[in-house]
Amino acid sequence: MSGALIDLARRMLAGDRRALARLITLVDDGDPGVADVMREIHPHTGKAHVIGLTGPPGAGKSTLVWALASAYRRRGRQVGIVAIDPTSPFSGGAVLGDRVRMPQDAPSGVFFRSMASRGQLGGTSRSVRGVVHLLDSFGKDVVLIETVGAGQSDVAVRSLAHTTVVVSVPGLGDDIQMLKAGILEIADVYVVNKADREGADRTAAQLASMIEVGRESALAVGQQPDEGWIPPIVRTVALKGENVDQLADALDAHRAYLLQSGRWEHIVRSQAEAELEEALLVRLEQVLAASSVASQKEHLISDIAARKLDAYQAADALLAMLRARA
Amino acid sequence: MSGALIDLARRMLAGDRRALARLITLVDDGDPGVADVMREIHPHTGKAHVIGLTGPPGAGKSTLVWALASAYRRRGRQVGIVAIDPTSPFSGGAVLGDRVRMPQDAPSGVFFRSMASRGQLGGTSRSVRGVVHLLDSFGKDVVLIETVGAGQSDVAVRSLAHTTVVVSVPGLGDDIQMLKAGILEIADVYVVNKADREGADRTAAQLASMIEVGRESALAVGQQPDEGWIPPIVRTVALKGENVDQLADALDAHRAYLLQSGRWEHIVRSQAEAELEEALLVRLEQVLAASSVASQKEHLISDIAARKLDAYQAADALLAMLRARA
Repeated sequence: MSGALIDLARRMLAGDRRALARLITLVDDGDPGVADVMREIHPHTGKAHVIGLTGPPGAGKSTLVWALASAYRRRGRQVGIVAIDPTSPFSGGAVLGDRVRMPQDAPSGVFFRSMASRGQLGGTSRSVRGVVHLLDSFGKDVVLIETVGAGQSDVAVRSLAHTTVVVSVPGLGDDIQMLKAGILEIADVYVVNKADREGADRTAAQLASMIEVGRESALAVGQQPDEGWIPPIVRTVALKGENVDQLADALDAHRAYLLQSGRWEHIVRSQAEAELEEALLVRLEQVLAASSVASQKEHLISDIAARKLDAYQAADALLAMLRARA
Repeated sequence: MSGALIDLARRMLAGDRRALARLITLVDDGDPGVADVMREIHPHTGKAHVIGLTGPPGAGKSTLVWALASAYRRRGRQVGIVAIDPTSPFSGGAVLGDRVRMPQDAPSGVFFRSMASRGQLGGTSRSVRGVVHLLDSFGKDVVLIETVGAGQSDVAVRSLAHTTVVVSVPGLGDDIQMLKAGILEIADVYVVNKADREGADRTAAQLASMIEVGRESALAVGQQPDEGWIPPIVRTVALKGENVDQLADALDAHRAYLLQSGRWEHIVRSQAEAELEEALLVRLEQVLAASSVASQKEHLISDIAARKLDAYQAADALLAMLRARA
């Protein structure tokens, strides 16, 4: 099993696209062999510029992501796209399939994959991170991660990406609504998409003042906002490809800034920490899934449900059991 | 320390509202003494009907939650409200404060608290669950959890609540946009709020057909949709209090259905399982924070960042270290 996976990883590293697709599925399924694959590819990772794009539904993110991929392809860059979809609780699969997401005029040489977001235990971050590593080691220069909505998966993307892009559109609502989206502060680059619509000026002005307020509140709570990088606001019309090159320029400039300022290294270290914690969780889950432990766990769950034990007492009992077995 | 916390928990159980507020803050801060508090209150939990309300920004959820709280108060029920806000990455605090959220004509005897959502390791579920336990043991008959947006925190709410309400409004967009919100399938009760606006009929019709499609796809993948409960669609105008009593009736009916069908017990057990896993994570974090382990962890993080070790190798090294110390 493991030997076959390592072989698959080597074929992927040698440029086999179908091996890549199969490995992504394994990562997405949380296959226990993923650890072996990651060991094999880890030395080949760390080169790609990982860019997260987020924003409310209807902002045209999918179209923008593909337009951006085309712009990068014209610059000779290898591009991978990961689109994170909300999970359907019924089917367990992504709500939107790949077919809905891929445009008919998709640029060639772009690897696209949509993934379902997970409910529990940081599952989304973990599997998306694994897929990013695969695309990175496969030789993609740029990996674009698109998330939908304004939830935790968007915050999680920041922990996966070097550069975060927040996409707005004119007329989505007043300031409080934008604040409620809760994702505006996290961007390195802002986009007002559908900028040929009425209200684009107002949206851009709101963004500019919100960036200013954000920097001031950071100072007020004693934090140092990033002085070397003022997030630019780029107006695009993704459907017509307008200003998408300007967006690619802004993203390249942010990458150059990260490398020069030493922030790139800082991000790599934070990601390594998050990844270590994720790997610890995987190991914990694997131990808990072992049959002898699983039956004890079922008893403890019954005791919690019956209000005989609280969850911490049960957790301590389970840990004592694991220690006795070690 | 621990003695003081247990004393605080006992005062809360005796009806001290300020003790409740202080305990909620401790849970929200992830205080290590929370385990002792939970042990103390656990036998007094399990009575409240926990209702999660979710939906896109602008649907009027906050107004609806308060109107619903008033309706329950008129029925003599004790009510607690937990509003989950997106976290501001700058301040670490909730983006919207309590003042923005509390209406001037708030009904008396309702305990309200807004909490910030957390980025990592299921932190939101864990702290919200703790607060729900506090409100439950304090004697609240109904706990309303309001979430913003369409992200993972909304899916997480389903794991905390007995009954999930999805709130829509007329004119938010076409079908694909509703699907993108990705939260429509999870509801036990649907609300079309602002139902005096144009398009309410169309929105209700879309919801009805989506419920139908959802049941069919569940059948198609071999799952048994819940035959005993057809999710009702309630049209409200929360700002005027219109049909809010009808919503409270639907929620009471769902609670009665859960109890009669045995599904209530099933939910209690799922929640116990989630809670056990969360408690295990807390213990894991506590072990990792111990100083001797923390310095080893830093070395391992550097090795991952330098591509000398992958995350799983580092995790296994850390676990071997912990085992040697046990």
